[in-house]
Amino acid sequence: METRSANYRAMVQDIVDTAPFIQEVGIRVADVGPGWCEMELPLLPRHLQQNGYVHAGVLATLADHTAGSAATSLVAPNEYVLSAEFNMSLLRAAKGERLRCRAEVIKPGSRLIVTESSVYVVSGEQSTLVVKARITLAVLERREEP
Amino acid sequence: METRSANYRAMVQDIVDTAPFIQEVGIRVADVGPGWCEMELPLLPRHLQQNGYVHAGVLATLADHTAGSAATSLVAPNEYVLSAEFNMSLLRAAKGERLRCRAEVIKPGSRLIVTESSVYVVSGEQSTLVVKARITLAVLERREEP
Amino acid sequence: METRSANYRAMVQDIVDTAPFIQEVGIRVADVGPGWCEMELPLLPRHLQQNGYVHAGVLATLADHTAGSAATSLVAPNEYVLSAEFNMSLLRAAKGERLRCRAEVIKPGSRLIVTESSVYVVSGEQSTLVVKARITLAVLERREEP
Amino acid sequence: METRSANYRAMVQDIVDTAPFIQEVGIRVADVGPGWCEMELPLLPRHLQQNGYVHAGVLATLADHTAGSAATSLVAPNEYVLSAEFNMSLLRAAKGERLRCRAEVIKPGSRLIVTESSVYVVSGEQSTLVVKARITLAVLERREEP
Repeated sequence: METRSANYRAMVQDIVDTAPFIQEVGIRVADVGPGWCEMELPLLPRHLQQNGYVHAGVLATLADHTAGSAATSLVAPNEYVLSAEFNMSLLRAAKGERLRCRAEVIKPGSRLIVTESSVYVVSGEQSTLVVKARITLAVLERREEP
Repeated sequence: METRSANYRAMVQDIVDTAPFIQEVGIRVADVGPGWCEMELPLLPRHLQQNGYVHAGVLATLADHTAGSAATSLVAPNEYVLSAEFNMSLLRAAKGERLRCRAEVIKPGSRLIVTESSVYVVSGEQSTLVVKARITLAVLERREEP
Repeated sequence: METRSANYRAMVQDIVDTAPFIQEVGIRVADVGPGWCEMELPLLPRHLQQNGYVHAGVLATLADHTAGSAATSLVAPNEYVLSAEFNMSLLRAAKGERLRCRAEVIKPGSRLIVTESSVYVVSGEQSTLVVKARITLAVLERREEP
Repeated sequence: METRSANYRAMVQDIVDTAPFIQEVGIRVADVGPGWCEMELPLLPRHLQQNGYVHAGVLATLADHTAGSAATSLVAPNEYVLSAEFNMSLLRAAKGERLRCRAEVIKPGSRLIVTESSVYVVSGEQSTLVVKARITLAVLERREEP
């Protein structure tokens, strides 16, 4: 896929650095290319729900933010993206050392970008798919109110 | 709707008290009845994304957890619920003093409970719908692995 | 809600009359107003799946088309709508005399319109909710390719 | 993936043969294996909506039924599956000679089976992805009411 912004890596990193909730949760960029992104989250007790599994809200946050970054990698410097529709299937309860998420753009539209995110829980050498999500983002101009 | 647990209020409060991520985000129970729940979140800078709006992950966390509590209000003492499917439409970018979410069970099944969550952003006397979500939860026995 | 087309009733009826698959399935307009629509489908053997219940595809067709008509009731004469995102929960297996669907716009955006559809199966005086759906439609100009 | 029914091919074909709505629409099995299925639909005027594109209801019917067959390929002879949750993104308006759908099981649970369907529109040698869907099905025993 072709990006419209030579600077997309810096844009993706900058969003992570300046989004307080992503800092709070602890998500970081692992890698990014035109139309895809990978992010990671080392798991800590604060990410869990009452039974010791990762909270669905943590999984949603990671799936959504990685998808937004995959979409961001394609848009022009005067554009930004905002999640419009989000769905996920929680395939297995997640417990492990860290989460890894890969998001890919499946429809790089000029107004709507559709992405898919896969979230894996990683423990040692084992990686298990725990979430499949599809996120549709609206492409807006920087001067536009969302 | 009829609950199978006289003690459901305590169960819902107990889950909030013992779910570290819910404590971290700052979500609290506003009210709960058989088949419904309302939760609130006073908004702080840590809940935002890079443009100053509430992060989609915060909205998802609130929508999911309130739905789980609405479902919890119906199950038997030896059962618990786990989100299986989650979808949400982000209707408007959210900015304001606090979030309020109301979740209602629309299908109280013995194996699957289907719920709907509406999230409002509140500023002064104004309340604006920002998210509609539907969450389907699996009903499990306490001895069952998820 | 306010329509931008005085002629919306005729537009909604015209789409039903000229959409071959809607004629094939047998769906008809029951009522329509600005931001909402109701449609009906008398159930026949051809609508069923292998176990004698209404096929999920019939329910999806009715939920989608009624939602599209609710959205159509709001747009300008030089605009049309196209489904972009569709989700539904199948709450109960459907069996009965006819289906009735009510769709309502919950976000009347200029680019995206978000709707909710509820499908009921009706037998005699009894009406049972069988599907809840949320459909997001893109608003396009008539000269635009979809 | 491992099937629990040696006879799964016949089961999948039998469902297509005995589901009136699938006969009505004209869907046929292209191929099936343990945990996946492919189906086809030669496009006719009756499958279209008012603008000459394939109706979203046709796409949903194909995505859902192929997913159900992929799930059916895994269950035991005394079990059957029923769609519980369905979501799809309509990536592009579809026009062409025929539709082809491939569905794959991504979570072969004993109570819930999660599948993904991709629908392509085919014209001559060109095949274009038009829909991505995720369908979650409940596994029921044959004696159980749905």
